[in-house]
Amino acid sequence: MICAILLIGTELVRGELRDANGHWLAGKLAELGHEVRELRTIDDDMDRIVETLKELGAHHDFLFVTGGLGPTSDDLTAAAAARAQGRELALDTRSLERVRAAFQNSGVPMHPMNEKQAVFPEGATVLDNDLGTAPGFACKIGRASAFFTPGVPREMQHIFEERIVPSLPKPNAPLVVERVTVFGLPESTVAGRVESVEREFPVTLGYRAGSHEIEVKVQGQATPGEPIEVVRAQAVAARNRVIELLGDAIFVEGRVALPEYFGNSFKERNISVGFAESCTGGLVSHLVTTVAGCSTCFFGSVVSYDNSVKQGVLGVPAEILERHGAVSEECAVAMARGAVRALGVDVGISITGIAGPSGGSPEKPVGLVHFAATSGDIVLTRRHEFRGDRAQIQRRAATRALVLGLELLRELSR
Amino acid sequence: MICAILLIGTELVRGELRDANGHWLAGKLAELGHEVRELRTIDDDMDRIVETLKELGAHHDFLFVTGGLGPTSDDLTAAAAARAQGRELALDTRSLERVRAAFQNSGVPMHPMNEKQAVFPEGATVLDNDLGTAPGFACKIGRASAFFTPGVPREMQHIFEERIVPSLPKPNAPLVVERVTVFGLPESTVAGRVESVEREFPVTLGYRAGSHEIEVKVQGQATPGEPIEVVRAQAVAARNRVIELLGDAIFVEGRVALPEYFGNSFKERNISVGFAESCTGGLVSHLVTTVAGCSTCFFGSVVSYDNSVKQGVLGVPAEILERHGAVSEECAVAMARGAVRALGVDVGISITGIAGPSGGSPEKPVGLVHFAATSGDIVLTRRHEFRGDRAQIQRRAATRALVLGLELLRELSR
Repeated sequence: MICAILLIGTELVRGELRDANGHWLAGKLAELGHEVRELRTIDDDMDRIVETLKELGAHHDFLFVTGGLGPTSDDLTAAAAARAQGRELALDTRSLERVRAAFQNSGVPMHPMNEKQAVFPEGATVLDNDLGTAPGFACKIGRASAFFTPGVPREMQHIFEERIVPSLPKPNAPLVVERVTVFGLPESTVAGRVESVEREFPVTLGYRAGSHEIEVKVQGQATPGEPIEVVRAQAVAARNRVIELLGDAIFVEGRVALPEYFGNSFKERNISVGFAESCTGGLVSHLVTTVAGCSTCFFGSVVSYDNSVKQGVLGVPAEILERHGAVSEECAVAMARGAVRALGVDVGISITGIAGPSGGSPEKPVGLVHFAATSGDIVLTRRHEFRGDRAQIQRRAATRALVLGLELLRELSR
Repeated sequence: MICAILLIGTELVRGELRDANGHWLAGKLAELGHEVRELRTIDDDMDRIVETLKELGAHHDFLFVTGGLGPTSDDLTAAAAARAQGRELALDTRSLERVRAAFQNSGVPMHPMNEKQAVFPEGATVLDNDLGTAPGFACKIGRASAFFTPGVPREMQHIFEERIVPSLPKPNAPLVVERVTVFGLPESTVAGRVESVEREFPVTLGYRAGSHEIEVKVQGQATPGEPIEVVRAQAVAARNRVIELLGDAIFVEGRVALPEYFGNSFKERNISVGFAESCTGGLVSHLVTTVAGCSTCFFGSVVSYDNSVKQGVLGVPAEILERHGAVSEECAVAMARGAVRALGVDVGISITGIAGPSGGSPEKPVGLVHFAATSGDIVLTRRHEFRGDRAQIQRRAATRALVLGLELLRELSR
């Protein structure tokens, strides 16, 4: 089905707030097999909202509208939707009760303004919002089925998943998607290894680069009349071939972010881990602790930005720092061993390098990073020269450190 | 002037890539005093690009278009711009030389495909790209002056700042903006303290919430014929009043991000600092080390996620953990002192709390965080209950920790 997404908010067109909903909705709709033709962002102006709704409603099957459902005077979306249909607004008493109950539960007194959040175009279907006071609604605008949700991302996502998706038609030619997530390789390398699968199987490959991972989407599309089981079997076979071609890369079936996969892998094996971070300055530890429940395997870290901390807390010998410098394989190994000792963990992982923009030299350029991971007698070391600005070098080094930890886990399981 | 922003890319409407350009451009244009009426995102489809250019060109003074200037077959923007004007495409030999030279410098062989990047609509003005191989261009479409740039954010921003801004007309009524950046207070509190300034001075106040700071914009607009010096003096007086009303808040004139302000403040006073992080898991250290040159004041941190690390590395007494628990003022103080001792820093700052979603109790709910900052005999402690999900609680706690460090610096200067 042909879709459009309309984001309403003066703060958006003024660049005061960066929209997160358009991207999310577009991705979800594409996954469901729908075609998003355009995203549009406009301000809280009654005439422009009405006109835009009419225009988009005339050319699309589905219209997804976010924003402008709050209680204040610049929240105009419900009134604009009514006007675009030539209808009146009507109070929905059931929604009013829900809004009242939500305020009562939260202990905040309800302002009469909030009654507005129970007012919808006549004949609209209310889309309950379990996470906030502004419900969404659905109605017809032109030829389009239009869905209106609040702009708060988690409320929008909740209403979309729980109230809207179940009512969307399945696309005529259903899409089957199998996923493999690859860690620690650039997108071009991943694509280079697996692209032949498109010639071997009736599938198309898609790639999505996350912050620290590449997701390979193996997509099979049923031709009219083709049984979905056949398409699914082909997609699974193609996915298995992708896995074969990935060889020694670190990967996992499905869609998983690296910090989560890292934490789960250590948790499953009941192995504790800690870091000794220099140029990443705490980013690796931060990533691991974005995942709830990481405390069962992650004990802690030493951010040894200054050499005095490398010596004092991690016990890196002064001799190594003098002879090889802080950015060296020798220092990385001593740091990783120091992490094991100081933190009392099974696995220590270290990162030491030059994030820039200054501090580089011909022998040790900006972007050079040494890594070590150790457990018992095993030591793995890696040396990389990353490109990019300071933030990119830190991010890439953090990714590599987590992947090195997974490589060490693989060694330990051998 | 009335502006529209058009973002071109199939990866955008499919939700595979989250656009960063629209938000950035909208903010810049608003600052320059222009009115952005809409942002639109469409896919790489020739007919749709041509139609959209014509439609937007008919209704706006300025049109900013990003994306689709690459060398591959799905990069259609230059051809679409020519078609929208009813013109032919023409090779620009000077641009071709520049593209060739850029490839020569980078050592990558130039593919004949890249010649396309020197082809523009006849009569267009080329906008040189010093950071990449795809130049931008400017031409008239309908009544609009249209500017085309590549979609790579840093190249787009470079061309916008260096090539486009100088050619934009100054708005009729110039805007004078004075800024104050406030740290550690929510937007509503900041607005509550300073909003009376709008009644005392002929200015309007705007607020921009950054990741860890609130920027107060004091805006004076000249009426036709009014000397700009008068408006500027009023804005400065209003800004000084804002500063007066902010009272004991931590703030700085101008626009500065918190991690940068934190690092500069410690650097200026030649005071070294380190952290003992528990529930923030490295985020505070990561923020400080996003800023280049932080090594002169930031020595390192201990991420003591597990109690064994709090005891072993930071020397938190077992008795405190047993009697008061890890999330307590007593533990925060012991952690901050431990950071000073273990890291050899002048100032130690600690964070210990419950980021959730689980681990809370009626006495110690999810979101409870204790902070301490210490130097010599001085100890400051804070207790906060943050709302939000795990990421929000971690982010808010990290902000608060940095602000506490600035509060301690203020104590030290007294």
